[in-house]
Amino acid sequence: MSLISFTADRCTLTSPTALPLAAGFLWNPHMMIHMTARGYATAQFMQPEPSKYARAQIMEAKHFMLPEQGTYAHHPGRFFYVKDRETGGLFSAPYEPVRAPVEAFAFEVTPTDIRWIIDRPGLRIELTLTLPVEDACELWEVTLTNSGKRDRKVSLYPAFPLGLMSWMNQSATYDPKHAGIIANCVTAYQKIEDYFKNKNLKDKVAFLSEQAPLAFETRQARFEGEGGLHKPDAIMAAQMDNGEALYENPIAAMQFDHDLEKGESVSHRFLFAPAFDDTEISRLKSLYLSADGFANARAAYAGYISAGAKSIHIETPDPHLDAFVNSWLPRQVYYHGDTNRLSTDPQTRNFLQDAIGSVYVKPETARKTLLKALSQQHANGSMPDGIRMYDGAELKYINQVPHTDHSVWLALLMEAYLDETDDYAVLDTLVTDVETGLARTVRDRISAANQWLIQAIDRRGLNFIDQGDWNDPMNMVGWKGKGVSGWLSLATAHSLRLWSQILESDGRDGSTFAGAAKTFNDAMNTHLWDGDWYGRGITDDDVKFGIKADTEGRIYLNPQSFALMSGAANSDRQARMVAAITEQMETPYGVEMIAPAYTHMREDVGRLTQKFPGVAENGSVYNHAAIFYIYSLYQVNETEKAFELLRKMLTGPNDEDYLRRGQLPVFVPNYYRGAHRQHPQASGRSSHLFNTGTAAWLYRSLIEGLFGLKGCREGLRIRPQLPPDWPSARVIRHFRGATFEIDISRGTPGLTVDGQAIAGDTIKDIVAGKTYYLRVNI
Amino acid sequence: MSLISFTADRCTLTSPTALPLAAGFLWNPHMMIHMTARGYATAQFMQPEPSKYARAQIMEAKHFMLPEQGTYAHHPGRFFYVKDRETGGLFSAPYEPVRAPVEAFAFEVTPTDIRWIIDRPGLRIELTLTLPVEDACELWEVTLTNSGKRDRKVSLYPAFPLGLMSWMNQSATYDPKHAGIIANCVTAYQKIEDYFKNKNLKDKVAFLSEQAPLAFETRQARFEGEGGLHKPDAIMAAQMDNGEALYENPIAAMQFDHDLEKGESVSHRFLFAPAFDDTEISRLKSLYLSADGFANARAAYAGYISAGAKSIHIETPDPHLDAFVNSWLPRQVYYHGDTNRLSTDPQTRNFLQDAIGSVYVKPETARKTLLKALSQQHANGSMPDGIRMYDGAELKYINQVPHTDHSVWLALLMEAYLDETDDYAVLDTLVTDVETGLARTVRDRISAANQWLIQAIDRRGLNFIDQGDWNDPMNMVGWKGKGVSGWLSLATAHSLRLWSQILESDGRDGSTFAGAAKTFNDAMNTHLWDGDWYGRGITDDDVKFGIKADTEGRIYLNPQSFALMSGAANSDRQARMVAAITEQMETPYGVEMIAPAYTHMREDVGRLTQKFPGVAENGSVYNHAAIFYIYSLYQVNETEKAFELLRKMLTGPNDEDYLRRGQLPVFVPNYYRGAHRQHPQASGRSSHLFNTGTAAWLYRSLIEGLFGLKGCREGLRIRPQLPPDWPSARVIRHFRGATFEIDISRGTPGLTVDGQAIAGDTIKDIVAGKTYYLRVNI
Repeated sequence: MSLISFTADRCTLTSPTALPLAAGFLWNPHMMIHMTARGYATAQFMQPEPSKYARAQIMEAKHFMLPEQGTYAHHPGRFFYVKDRETGGLFSAPYEPVRAPVEAFAFEVTPTDIRWIIDRPGLRIELTLTLPVEDACELWEVTLTNSGKRDRKVSLYPAFPLGLMSWMNQSATYDPKHAGIIANCVTAYQKIEDYFKNKNLKDKVAFLSEQAPLAFETRQARFEGEGGLHKPDAIMAAQMDNGEALYENPIAAMQFDHDLEKGESVSHRFLFAPAFDDTEISRLKSLYLSADGFANARAAYAGYISAGAKSIHIETPDPHLDAFVNSWLPRQVYYHGDTNRLSTDPQTRNFLQDAIGSVYVKPETARKTLLKALSQQHANGSMPDGIRMYDGAELKYINQVPHTDHSVWLALLMEAYLDETDDYAVLDTLVTDVETGLARTVRDRISAANQWLIQAIDRRGLNFIDQGDWNDPMNMVGWKGKGVSGWLSLATAHSLRLWSQILESDGRDGSTFAGAAKTFNDAMNTHLWDGDWYGRGITDDDVKFGIKADTEGRIYLNPQSFALMSGAANSDRQARMVAAITEQMETPYGVEMIAPAYTHMREDVGRLTQKFPGVAENGSVYNHAAIFYIYSLYQVNETEKAFELLRKMLTGPNDEDYLRRGQLPVFVPNYYRGAHRQHPQASGRSSHLFNTGTAAWLYRSLIEGLFGLKGCREGLRIRPQLPPDWPSARVIRHFRGATFEIDISRGTPGLTVDGQAIAGDTIKDIVAGKTYYLRVNI
Repeated sequence: MSLISFTADRCTLTSPTALPLAAGFLWNPHMMIHMTARGYATAQFMQPEPSKYARAQIMEAKHFMLPEQGTYAHHPGRFFYVKDRETGGLFSAPYEPVRAPVEAFAFEVTPTDIRWIIDRPGLRIELTLTLPVEDACELWEVTLTNSGKRDRKVSLYPAFPLGLMSWMNQSATYDPKHAGIIANCVTAYQKIEDYFKNKNLKDKVAFLSEQAPLAFETRQARFEGEGGLHKPDAIMAAQMDNGEALYENPIAAMQFDHDLEKGESVSHRFLFAPAFDDTEISRLKSLYLSADGFANARAAYAGYISAGAKSIHIETPDPHLDAFVNSWLPRQVYYHGDTNRLSTDPQTRNFLQDAIGSVYVKPETARKTLLKALSQQHANGSMPDGIRMYDGAELKYINQVPHTDHSVWLALLMEAYLDETDDYAVLDTLVTDVETGLARTVRDRISAANQWLIQAIDRRGLNFIDQGDWNDPMNMVGWKGKGVSGWLSLATAHSLRLWSQILESDGRDGSTFAGAAKTFNDAMNTHLWDGDWYGRGITDDDVKFGIKADTEGRIYLNPQSFALMSGAANSDRQARMVAAITEQMETPYGVEMIAPAYTHMREDVGRLTQKFPGVAENGSVYNHAAIFYIYSLYQVNETEKAFELLRKMLTGPNDEDYLRRGQLPVFVPNYYRGAHRQHPQASGRSSHLFNTGTAAWLYRSLIEGLFGLKGCREGLRIRPQLPPDWPSARVIRHFRGATFEIDISRGTPGLTVDGQAIAGDTIKDIVAGKTYYLRVNI
């Protein structure tokens, strides 16, 4: 059996050990859970700030999700121990913490649930995790089957560590009324105003069983005893002690004894959830904890996921690509748009780019995002560092550091949104902003944002960088107020150009913005063209960087991608840039963002250069940057290289590739390790982070680039750009309410619609509800 | 062998499992390390804020030390694995993480080092941890002896996990130049101003060996493999992989192979320390990592510890008490005064009370503390919530919440300081404060603090509580500005009375303060005497609490103790209070601080009532409160009860008591679990926290209460108050440069000095350097 099998509705991993961090994730509007194949879980729910219900054994810092975060023995997990009461033999499903050998192992991730099927000698255990839509709540189903040749006496022990809930007050007891363990805590606070916030927190955690257990244990330390998590005293004993956790780290562990005849199965259902009070626990139990409750929740959840409509369905010579594009990628795109990454203060650039993905899967979300973001525009036209998702949300972490690029993303979103929906009426929508209380149209607001960019320049006409711009947080280039960003100047040019085109398409005069775009491009060509590529910027002390004279950080990818899009680079320069990138930045896992990665702090560049070489922004294959390069290659008809890099962005399809990246192909991560020329042994490893603007741009690059199915005012433009080794492909494209079934073949270029050849490459006067059959020869 | 043996210079625990959190601690002016008998370590060093050099595997929150914090498999530790290369047999010393059975185990804590002697079949391993004085640096000596009947091939593997050093940049490599593993990281920052602070941080960790190892491993995940921390793949292999940690959690693990003949021993020395750069690593290595270096460091450290002079040496019928008082208690007192609990913003009340301990072991520290605290007095006379130990130190955690009691502790410190030193000249010392820049005498400043207390009253004449006072942080009693504190009003009365007495002793008029003290006492008797005890306060909404009408929190200890000291209670009331406390608050482990503990939030009381019943302030045997009660009982001649409670405050001397408390008797903890009537099965457990004002007041209660050897203007007053079952006791008292050797016996009361009977009970005209021989009959 191969290590990984992968289809549009299932990804299966057949080893618990080969990819230690391999995981699937499920979410609903209230929560997210990331489950590794081995049984470790990272879950959070919103109340309204992100909160945990199963915690570490110590007080963990609040932080954003960390790249490549490893696990450890006491990482929160969902463990199901099974003991043979006759032999004392012990294992735990899915794998942690006992780590017993298996006969067969399958970790199955589907778009709507996560399952394991594990065969041990004479025993099979199946686990399924589902989420309902409307609650932060895990639904677990466990089936134990005697698959051997003799009758068995086995005990099943679900054991969910709850960790250090609060140093102020924590406890757990079994409540027979619920057949469940109810843990309680009081969230600590010091300032009196926090008390009134904390009053509404869900400080309880419920672990409920459909059947009453034989016994239970709620004290983590007593559960483990000297045997440890891998051989807990409480499980090695004949019966658990029914212990109550009084001010100590709790665990929700139960014991169920079963006598299983040959071939006999037994099933359990469990519910695990944070809760405010007993009333909520009762409600959750009666709503979900039954065969019908589980079935209803599954059906509702499938409906929720399918509300993220897929914009395309493809059949190509690359079945692995088909599976990813037909199911997993739009799911990831939908996740971003629907949850804002479970943040209450998404960075403005992320918020707007995630909406570019929503354009294809749920355009009404994109529209809401646009209006929400503009309602927090500053009086001077610039966009804030983060968007507050509720009254009282605070800008946290990096959102407290001023960045100058947030205003460039509006026009990029508008281009995608209008091309897809033709909803030009949105431009006349009035938006009142929080800061001034004034109502202005969307059109005026985006113009104001672009006007702000036009004036935020130095004497050379390049944009100031301040303490940072997009994903190169070079916080010391311009902190004294003089340094400028080459990338941002090109992004501004691109934004201005797009915005002028949108105004023209809307029947207005866009020439001012078009002229300004040219001025930015000219300034870049004057000051930052370095012979074979564009430099990244100029510091407060007038030092150019990202140039040939540098030994580290010689070439940055983002300025080149945006120069391809903004029109700054003529065709000679385009070719030089692509050649330089190919030579210096490409790796087997994609194209790096900076090369060579910085190995030492460079004081006039700053935070970026303190990062480890090859991870995050410092020389990794940063997919969000790589996808812009791919997208821009499609713009300038470098389609072969574009596809080559696009394919490298996807994990798999070979075992060696999975092993190297350590990741299942169910999402595109924010980076793979780069610094390939410096640390080849580590390069390619996945960050394991699925929150990334890559998803939106990857979907867009596939739809509008590879398959060339881009909207315009007139309708749908058909310009496929298939790789040369594909003889043909089939695509179903959903667009403005109509369906397009498209066969793409090699031959004399031409386009037929419903059997009729048409001139040009654009399908006009589209009728919603209709299905069009297209044949395209390329 | 008994579980614990205990003397003045050694405490030995002979089981690795009986007391899971039992630990010793070592400190120097730069660091603190808390080592459990099982091998887990919690260590911090100052740069200038508290920092870690061995971390958790995840990003841990910054927090103050937590009570009853448990350990877990991946808790930072110092592990020495030993493998028999012929049999594959594995164990780890001291005990974690393999948890192999031992033939004999001794965990030995001395005032200056921590040692283990562990016998396994045919092998003995001895570990010693020492600190130098002048560096944050651990010095480990390991001796492995073949104690069996055959020659052995064994491998030794020191393995110190370093944890998640930084999500930004972490790595570890072996440096042959140092024969050591050097881990490196970059502390993450987001705000540019933090970069300039972080530049000076010690971001490296060095683990150096005297001999070069055969092999090493620096990758935590690869070290463990699937075997886990309890059976690491890297150790089960014939030889370690010499792996380099590139952006992953590092571990410092080395392999040394030895062939040991029968009876043969081999020793290793290791150094483990944070470091700024390679130069510092070289310096540490050359200074310490040799036989001479270790010997010099030990000698210097012994000198450092002995600089905390012991005020008394006792020989009583209670050898356990003798050992504790002659060595461990003054060591704890010295630790507090010399390190300020390794905090950079000690709470003012703690800072001043720790100085009360310094009065007896290092009076010059007490004087410095007084002047430092007064230099941060507010212009209105009140004292701040915390004292900033360096320019730029921030008031953190609870110090950001306004408390009203900080001004009462000055007079209490002054009484102890002047009685011990007679240094009345300090009252004329000029202190310039930061806020106003004005110079005022100590006398004027303390008067101003007391004047501030006099005016901070409501219409009843009771002190406002604001968001809290001393260790009952009842933050909602008076947050609206109206609620008052009964305890604080009594503490003010006590402070005023002491201050008036000091002024009188200094030849000045103290009558204003004496009168004000009486006014406070009268107000308390009018408004908060509840028939058998004093109430704790009155809320913003005029609700009295800590009274008989309450079902929870009926009686608080602190108001009673301070009423005994302040003179508020007449003898009838004194007797009623003591009776109520005896009936409602006494437990086998001491006297509780509140009874019954709150089990539910009481909105008009606040944070305290959200704590778990029986821990911290909510109904525990909070020793800092208990010791005030004991101290006050000595003031009112309730000496028998005072001693009974004092004895309960000490852990031991019986195994059952150690098991119940879970603690070695090498320090007095801040609390034992209380709520004895609600949760008898958990009561008595130690908090394991050794930062507590209890130490100072306990030492004072012993010196001035039990042994009655209190200074005064004339000299040393001799009034022993021994428990009735002691026929006699011997005490050596060091006082104002002289030595007093005192024999206390039963008989016709009287006092002889150097064989001559004297009138009265006071030794006058003390000559420094002289030894006085005293016989006291009581």
